[in-house]
Amino acid sequence: MLDLGGIETSTDRALLRQKSRDFYWYSPILKALLDGKCADLLARPKDEAEVLRILAAARAAGMPVTARGGGTGNYGQCVPMQGGVVMDLSGMTGLLSLRDGVAEVEPGARMVDIDAWARPQGWELRLWPSTKRTATIGGFVAGGGAGVGGLHHGTLRERGNLLGVRVATMQDPPAILDLDGDRASPVNRTYGTTGIITRIRLPLTPAQDWRDVAVAFADFDDAARCAWALAHADGIAKKMCAVFDARLPPFFKGLETPAGQALLLTSITPAGMVALRDLVGDHRGTIFADQGMAAAEADPAATPFYEYCWNHTTLQVLKRDRGVTYLQCRFPFEGTLESLSAVRARFPDELWMHTECVRFGGRLTMSALPVIRWTNEARLYEIIAGFEAEGCGIANPHVVTIEEGSGYRRVPGDQLGFKKMVDPLGLLNPGKMKSFEEDRA
Amino acid sequence: MLDLGGIETSTDRALLRQKSRDFYWYSPILKALLDGKCADLLARPKDEAEVLRILAAARAAGMPVTARGGGTGNYGQCVPMQGGVVMDLSGMTGLLSLRDGVAEVEPGARMVDIDAWARPQGWELRLWPSTKRTATIGGFVAGGGAGVGGLHHGTLRERGNLLGVRVATMQDPPAILDLDGDRASPVNRTYGTTGIITRIRLPLTPAQDWRDVAVAFADFDDAARCAWALAHADGIAKKMCAVFDARLPPFFKGLETPAGQALLLTSITPAGMVALRDLVGDHRGTIFADQGMAAAEADPAATPFYEYCWNHTTLQVLKRDRGVTYLQCRFPFEGTLESLSAVRARFPDELWMHTECVRFGGRLTMSALPVIRWTNEARLYEIIAGFEAEGCGIANPHVVTIEEGSGYRRVPGDQLGFKKMVDPLGLLNPGKMKSFEEDRA
Repeated sequence: MLDLGGIETSTDRALLRQKSRDFYWYSPILKALLDGKCADLLARPKDEAEVLRILAAARAAGMPVTARGGGTGNYGQCVPMQGGVVMDLSGMTGLLSLRDGVAEVEPGARMVDIDAWARPQGWELRLWPSTKRTATIGGFVAGGGAGVGGLHHGTLRERGNLLGVRVATMQDPPAILDLDGDRASPVNRTYGTTGIITRIRLPLTPAQDWRDVAVAFADFDDAARCAWALAHADGIAKKMCAVFDARLPPFFKGLETPAGQALLLTSITPAGMVALRDLVGDHRGTIFADQGMAAAEADPAATPFYEYCWNHTTLQVLKRDRGVTYLQCRFPFEGTLESLSAVRARFPDELWMHTECVRFGGRLTMSALPVIRWTNEARLYEIIAGFEAEGCGIANPHVVTIEEGSGYRRVPGDQLGFKKMVDPLGLLNPGKMKSFEEDRA
Repeated sequence: MLDLGGIETSTDRALLRQKSRDFYWYSPILKALLDGKCADLLARPKDEAEVLRILAAARAAGMPVTARGGGTGNYGQCVPMQGGVVMDLSGMTGLLSLRDGVAEVEPGARMVDIDAWARPQGWELRLWPSTKRTATIGGFVAGGGAGVGGLHHGTLRERGNLLGVRVATMQDPPAILDLDGDRASPVNRTYGTTGIITRIRLPLTPAQDWRDVAVAFADFDDAARCAWALAHADGIAKKMCAVFDARLPPFFKGLETPAGQALLLTSITPAGMVALRDLVGDHRGTIFADQGMAAAEADPAATPFYEYCWNHTTLQVLKRDRGVTYLQCRFPFEGTLESLSAVRARFPDELWMHTECVRFGGRLTMSALPVIRWTNEARLYEIIAGFEAEGCGIANPHVVTIEEGSGYRRVPGDQLGFKKMVDPLGLLNPGKMKSFEEDRA
């Protein structure tokens, strides 16, 4: 098919199907759109030189190339809409250097492995997805960018959270660009449409001994107010803080939340426990479980609490009930709790609220990743409209293009201009950058 | 005078005068009020048992007791308004333990020494005053509580920033109370009126390799906008960020700011330098100096940039021009930069603006510690009224009582009730807690 002698490739149909998928099936809409999309060839480079050879061969053949890492995305980021090559970067796992708190790594390194390598050196990841134990850093940069740690560090779109990348282009011939600071923005969360990331310079944060803590509340509003106060408590160092409607914890295997109680999950440092108890007491909550996060993460039989959070919340429900889906929303910075109450009141039955305290642009708010009883697309868009009517932004996870899906999470910069330069033929993950497709049409 | 055999004491007049003062002379008003106030006896305990003996003897004699540490306060916190005993706690310097990021120390430990002890163990102070090299932790808890690090951690009044204290009371007989979490609030920033702090449990933060960076701007508003953007840049780890009117840097010996330029000083981690350059470039600034903070701190001939900041700004000017004083203000959370511009426009000549980016209650704003050309008290209060008219809070440094001076910095809790319990005779630093004096009258 392509002259890729010496490079690991496969045309095995079962493997191709597996490597052409991610977790897009959370969305019944994406499931209908993407089921059956499949690459023609799997290529698994072991280094940058092989990446360039694959790109050159695909370019010569006019074949699309779609990059993938751990395949833990939810938006079909790595689904090859027009077939061609799926380039699986999970073989490029190099942990190259860690100096002055900056890690240089290859894109296929799993995030849990980066953390395990960094922690003995005194550092940890600033941000990770709830899929930390399987996700790769390349996939997080190219198609994630938010999650645990966002309460402190914001998202990967904040200046300074991604220091640089090396990226392979689809020019003639394919070339390597080394981009730092703002110059790296054109490949930040563009699903591999603007080049194949071959190396990442990532700032870390000093490692801390996080403790997962679970707090139960008879009343959801008390839980939300407590989370909001905790988010603002600058004296308590935190990695995350999430709130769950009482209908969600019964799906959280391994966490025995008192029946009918709303749940707050947080990860704080040991020094914060005294202040947390004071704060929880103010809001009529009960601490009912706690554990060391690192120990839970290292134990395949245990569940670090972040695996109940972010996009894992929906997954925990889907494991036992396939009749639900979800949304990704951001509450307004002012009147945050009022907006939260208003949205819940609009959809008391079919929406099970789940929020994450986060920072965007240096300001605190809550993101919502509610679980939603699925009826049909029209109803889903009614719910979206309900959120918007209460001042929420939507990062729609039921669409495949960067522009439609990113909402408030879009990285600033001229990504379209960069795309035209590095992929003039439009062969990198075609169908995912709407502005480029429209520009060509 | 008192039976204090075995305890270090002195009645030397020169020493008593020295130990009855702090930096209240920044304020011409406090200077007139406090000059000449002097203790009758200096006592310097070496441990908690000696503190209790001094308190018991003073109580029996009906003598006031005023505690002091490094004497670096600016509000006359340690000036004995009614004479009596000055208890100098600078001899109780024990660094007792550091576990799970919590330090337990004695009140006389200098903050620079706590940091020097903690850093090799991987930790550093969350907060320190610009007088870090001479201030004691007891004085910071009892009469400071804000400063460098406030951009990240807020002030000492934020829940979780002070984990606990041991405090000696003026009861009959004097006793030791051990207070944790919210229970310690009654001795937080009460100038030693609610007990003598004998031990402090302080949460630290992971040590980082801070770099001091100086940026010049042709235009003050550009400097302020850059600082505001930097304060919100969650991808750039920062210990401080301050802005100075172009008339201030000529007083900063050792920092050659280009003539006529406004100044931004910040301390960031090495990983933040690339992003800082991008951000400074957006605002037409020029980085003209940088240094390692720890190296500067360890060198008596060098000046860590924080010694141009916070209350040191005014000191740098006073070294060469005794005709100025200052204020302490907090800008509103919304419309912060607009309020800043409006205040400057009201007082274009006699007010040299200096702001510090800080967090209060989890929200970013700027504090102002402007240098003000002194004319008279009436004019000072006109300037205060001008700040208030533009939405600013005032923590007035020209008064001696906790209540009048603390403004937005007051720690919540029933400090008066606690005072009545632990010091029923009103012998601890009399004249400093207005509500108590009024209650007695």
